[in-house]
Amino acid sequence: MKLTLVEKASLTSGSGTWHTTAVRDVVPALTLSDGPHGIRRQGGSPADGDALGLRRSVPATCFPPAVALGSSWDPALARRVGAALAAEAVALGVDVVLGPGVNIKRSPLCGRNFEYFSEDPHLTGVMGAAVVNGVQSLGVGACVKHFAVNNQETDRMRVSADVDEQTLREIYLPAFEHIVREAGPYAVMCAYNRVNGVHASQHRWLLTDLLRGEWGFDGLVMSDWGAVNDRVAALEAGLDLEMPPTGTDDEIVAAVRDGRLAESVLDVAAGRVLRLAERVRARPRHDTWDADAHHELAREAARASAVLLKNDGVLPLAPGLRVAVLGEQARSPRYQGHGSSHVVPTKLDNALDALRTAMDVTFAPGYRPDGTPDPDLEHEAVRTAADADVAVVFLGLADAEESEGFDRTSLDLPAGQVALLRRVAEACRKVVVVLSNGGVVSVAGWQEHASAVLEGWLLGQAGGAALADLLLGTHSPSGRLTETIPLRLADVPCHLHFPGSDGHVLYGEGRYVGYRHHDTLGTEVAYPFGHGLTYSSFAYSDLEVRETGGNEWQVEFTVTNTGERHAQEVAQLYVAFEEERPTRPRHTLRGFAKVGPAPGASERVRLPLTGRDLAQWSVERGGWRIEPGSFLVEVGASSRDIRLRAEVRTPGDGHVTPLTAMSTLGEWLAHPVGGRVLKERLSGAAAGLAEADPALLGLALGIPLIKFRTFGLGLTAQVVDDLLAAVRAGS
Amino acid sequence: MKLTLVEKASLTSGSGTWHTTAVRDVVPALTLSDGPHGIRRQGGSPADGDALGLRRSVPATCFPPAVALGSSWDPALARRVGAALAAEAVALGVDVVLGPGVNIKRSPLCGRNFEYFSEDPHLTGVMGAAVVNGVQSLGVGACVKHFAVNNQETDRMRVSADVDEQTLREIYLPAFEHIVREAGPYAVMCAYNRVNGVHASQHRWLLTDLLRGEWGFDGLVMSDWGAVNDRVAALEAGLDLEMPPTGTDDEIVAAVRDGRLAESVLDVAAGRVLRLAERVRARPRHDTWDADAHHELAREAARASAVLLKNDGVLPLAPGLRVAVLGEQARSPRYQGHGSSHVVPTKLDNALDALRTAMDVTFAPGYRPDGTPDPDLEHEAVRTAADADVAVVFLGLADAEESEGFDRTSLDLPAGQVALLRRVAEACRKVVVVLSNGGVVSVAGWQEHASAVLEGWLLGQAGGAALADLLLGTHSPSGRLTETIPLRLADVPCHLHFPGSDGHVLYGEGRYVGYRHHDTLGTEVAYPFGHGLTYSSFAYSDLEVRETGGNEWQVEFTVTNTGERHAQEVAQLYVAFEEERPTRPRHTLRGFAKVGPAPGASERVRLPLTGRDLAQWSVERGGWRIEPGSFLVEVGASSRDIRLRAEVRTPGDGHVTPLTAMSTLGEWLAHPVGGRVLKERLSGAAAGLAEADPALLGLALGIPLIKFRTFGLGLTAQVVDDLLAAVRAGS
Repeated sequence: MKLTLVEKASLTSGSGTWHTTAVRDVVPALTLSDGPHGIRRQGGSPADGDALGLRRSVPATCFPPAVALGSSWDPALARRVGAALAAEAVALGVDVVLGPGVNIKRSPLCGRNFEYFSEDPHLTGVMGAAVVNGVQSLGVGACVKHFAVNNQETDRMRVSADVDEQTLREIYLPAFEHIVREAGPYAVMCAYNRVNGVHASQHRWLLTDLLRGEWGFDGLVMSDWGAVNDRVAALEAGLDLEMPPTGTDDEIVAAVRDGRLAESVLDVAAGRVLRLAERVRARPRHDTWDADAHHELAREAARASAVLLKNDGVLPLAPGLRVAVLGEQARSPRYQGHGSSHVVPTKLDNALDALRTAMDVTFAPGYRPDGTPDPDLEHEAVRTAADADVAVVFLGLADAEESEGFDRTSLDLPAGQVALLRRVAEACRKVVVVLSNGGVVSVAGWQEHASAVLEGWLLGQAGGAALADLLLGTHSPSGRLTETIPLRLADVPCHLHFPGSDGHVLYGEGRYVGYRHHDTLGTEVAYPFGHGLTYSSFAYSDLEVRETGGNEWQVEFTVTNTGERHAQEVAQLYVAFEEERPTRPRHTLRGFAKVGPAPGASERVRLPLTGRDLAQWSVERGGWRIEPGSFLVEVGASSRDIRLRAEVRTPGDGHVTPLTAMSTLGEWLAHPVGGRVLKERLSGAAAGLAEADPALLGLALGIPLIKFRTFGLGLTAQVVDDLLAAVRAGS
Repeated sequence: MKLTLVEKASLTSGSGTWHTTAVRDVVPALTLSDGPHGIRRQGGSPADGDALGLRRSVPATCFPPAVALGSSWDPALARRVGAALAAEAVALGVDVVLGPGVNIKRSPLCGRNFEYFSEDPHLTGVMGAAVVNGVQSLGVGACVKHFAVNNQETDRMRVSADVDEQTLREIYLPAFEHIVREAGPYAVMCAYNRVNGVHASQHRWLLTDLLRGEWGFDGLVMSDWGAVNDRVAALEAGLDLEMPPTGTDDEIVAAVRDGRLAESVLDVAAGRVLRLAERVRARPRHDTWDADAHHELAREAARASAVLLKNDGVLPLAPGLRVAVLGEQARSPRYQGHGSSHVVPTKLDNALDALRTAMDVTFAPGYRPDGTPDPDLEHEAVRTAADADVAVVFLGLADAEESEGFDRTSLDLPAGQVALLRRVAEACRKVVVVLSNGGVVSVAGWQEHASAVLEGWLLGQAGGAALADLLLGTHSPSGRLTETIPLRLADVPCHLHFPGSDGHVLYGEGRYVGYRHHDTLGTEVAYPFGHGLTYSSFAYSDLEVRETGGNEWQVEFTVTNTGERHAQEVAQLYVAFEEERPTRPRHTLRGFAKVGPAPGASERVRLPLTGRDLAQWSVERGGWRIEPGSFLVEVGASSRDIRLRAEVRTPGDGHVTPLTAMSTLGEWLAHPVGGRVLKERLSGAAAGLAEADPALLGLALGIPLIKFRTFGLGLTAQVVDDLLAAVRAGS
């Protein structure tokens, strides 16, 4: 098949907001659709729709957004949700679903956090890969986004994320890497922002060297909607498809004709569009789906995602209690966030109705639909609470407070809602708070008024029924925090840098994001990463770490349901390094398993651990490096609730940094060859250092060898050259 | 005068450790000597001595090291100390004194902090300039060091300080800038470390573009001892003099002959050595100094430098009390740190003897001379305390714990000393702690046992007598903290990054060093920056801020001695910005005055404020930028004890960022011309945004104008070009 230059150029940009460009009858136009947690198919002609989400889309199931689905810590569930998304995509004629979003939650203020999974890259990678596998199991393409370092909405089309390479490699890239390596997504979407000064859309290192060269990505890279700034530069960097089109295909054609752009570059990009078309061509055809079954799946996912933060025993609600349901959000749920991910649901549950099907409850809205206070509504709610044994108060961020496109400036719940809670708590002995919010809210200053707090995030269209299931105890909560709830905004590691200014945001906290920061410093937090209660209890025992190869281990332990209810535990595996002064995060999540042994029963959990799990990225030493020594395997129920520990030794990766003239005396002496060479060949002053007083020797050990020429200790540049030659000769 | 190529090359390196190279009878060899707080003149032949400080130097007055002198907040005193240093330099044949050290105390763990003034650049600059002015008042050269960003000892000859430009400009460079501009030092010494990957010794931007080009430095740049790695590169970058010589002058000669190095570069460097020789030639000749007068000055300076952290009234010691003096350091003072700044003193006071001249005291050493515990000594000390009304306990870091060349790893006092203190406090009702330490020590966990804490730092050779003066109340304490005492090491802003690894240290905390961090976040601290008590009390009143020009103000206020003793107050002026979310440090020190009105009397303080004091460095907007708006003038006794406040408005600097296609819709609308042009020329969709719903408009305001072509709102690249042309035309 032979395409003209113009045809090839046309393939590298879309035709309209949601379609790629067809070429004759050779290449079909593909349909792309937003859809991290539901398909947002905008109807009408190919050129229809608007990226800003003004116009309505066709109804589709609104599954729990990533903030919730991530909290399930259940990749099998996420995979099923992915497959359901794909089934709806097929029915709606969508070839590629624009999701999942796998950016790291650097700050709880990021307006788009509800579309992301976690502050932790391992958890994000595992959950993201599960969604991709699910979507692609039906032959629909997934498009992993936003590559990369897109962690805020403020000035998102210009801001440069200024971040060191070690932090990139250990925090902001691993989720993408894991998904590319393990799930083979058909597409990756570049981010709007710049990374270290270069637009992600034209960042050759990211889009080509790393993504394809190192990770072996074989799919297509498309732009975020409007992310391209320079068509030719983007194409050369490895961006294959501009979405939506800016009408600049002629720039590509001209550049090829002028010789500024090699036609081979265009061939490769156009070829990738063709390949994507090939891939999705194989998918099944159907034009409907089982809406009830998908709704039920959305309910199951929502149930698995809510996190029980606190409970003095009031939950599950005992039969026979007089229950007052308070808060407009019980009736008019907040279940998804604003922006490009917004879905028109097929159906919408609310918790009030769901509770009413199981028990008699009273209800008062307590505040206005927009979340703002109203004295009359508040008064009515307090009166309603006074007549009840338990008040279940639905609080949360207002719809307008969080969205794609801007970041929050505070972690606080609306003050009026907190005031309502205080008054309700005075009127009623037992108060349960149910939260709805896409980004973390602070619990400090009000949670003491609550006997229980159920964090409901944004739970999708079946969230209301799911919350009722959990409140009533037909199911036990099993969600766990994927992000730390800090005591106050000032405790957030990036607080002083977020969201930057002058077009730059300094990632000054480096690798110390979320619990990596709090647990290394010992900062007090409201609720730690990994935390979540349920209606049963679990014991951990019999930790065993078996070596299964060079720098490979199998970690095994037993989880026992010691309570009286069916419930699930999320057992978490951390690798820890205990150091006098921190040179890395104190511990990091390296595995987890969601298990649900029956009451009284046990389950043996097996998790692998590899050298990469111990490695740090070293720019100076050229990659992932494992130092010899010991580390701790920690197993527990949260990053602050470690139940089992084992010390394990690794021989390291055997890497020896080559000696240079700037290697210190200490490094020379520690080198397997250098130490011997130095002692053999040197006499006089330098050798005499061995007899110097210890303090002086301590100083000397830190001095680069070549510097001893300056300090008059008899070494010359020639002597150092000779020593280096001897080391290279291995003698 | 005509020099040969070889002669010129020889001028650019030293002859021996402490001398420059003489050329025939044309250029004399100059003598350089360590000496930030005392002259360390090593005797004997020109090639004698050793940079590591092994051999003894000629006795000279050991004035209080910078950690103490800085705490005096008294530039006039610092200038007198500088002049005394110069007088001794002259007598000892020293042409250039290698000091002051003006690096910022980024971490309290830095081993060389005792040689530096403060965590604050303004205070550092003012005190450093005073020392330079004092030294150079006698025609001796001062050499300001270590330029730049030398804030740790760990791996100091290789480590790269990775720091963003705004932080460089606002934290790590201003003290150097102030001193260069205001005091005209004859010399600057480059640092050992790398700055953003480039050795300071060959950092052209630092040594030439900034130092000479922007700041107008007209002196000589020499290397720190052994800091040169590449002679030719260093010379080209602006390093004039290598110290000590590495015998590589032939490299310079060869490079010129090969044409790799322009001879004009060598001419300039050699010329600067000649000019330095010219400058110091004019100085007076004498070969002795008044050792008693200098000792008395050292005592006065020490008295002005100790900081009374806490006092329940036990100090000054009332006559007639039975006083037990405990702690070996009362008898064997720690009064200076280790390394190149180490001075052989002319005389050495100790507090025990000084107290004994005034009152009968009992004494027990309590711990061994090296600071380690001894059960017998501890027991004796407790018995001695039991028989006294007040126990004055001298505690401090051991001699081996802090030095140039390595960093501490903890803020703790030796555990044995803390244990001793606890037992003494059980035995004696009133306990006064006197501290000796070059770097900050934690007071958490023990200060509750003390009725008073006097932070004595390292006070120089007359520190013992000075401490007695303060304890007895013949003088009132007047030192103030130049660095925050944090509650715990984990609260130090750079804790997770210090001292780096793999040859890099990330300055991730950015501008948030010391109180800039703590006061912005509201972190609890043990004692804040600027804190210090005395034996009287002071009131602040009548704040007036008068505009004296464009972005210039005079700040005036009255300080009244409301107590009954002669004492001094350090009134501090901060400029504050109160913001919803921080985009800069909450406030910064911009002026101070040490005043001492008699009891009942008042003094009017006048301090200038300039636009620079309000400015932030903006890389994107090309320099120091003042935004229009209001700021607070704060006057108080510490960064956390603000007594007077006034809101002031600035029109800003009038800078308007030029519009581009990537300027956001909001920036276009706010631009004085662009807003009008946009409204006039656009109709249809883009103009229709004005009627869009507010949430959408909010999003749109943040979108770069050119991006509207993507979002289908009718703008084309051509339209944007036309708009830009219209803005440039001002129509």
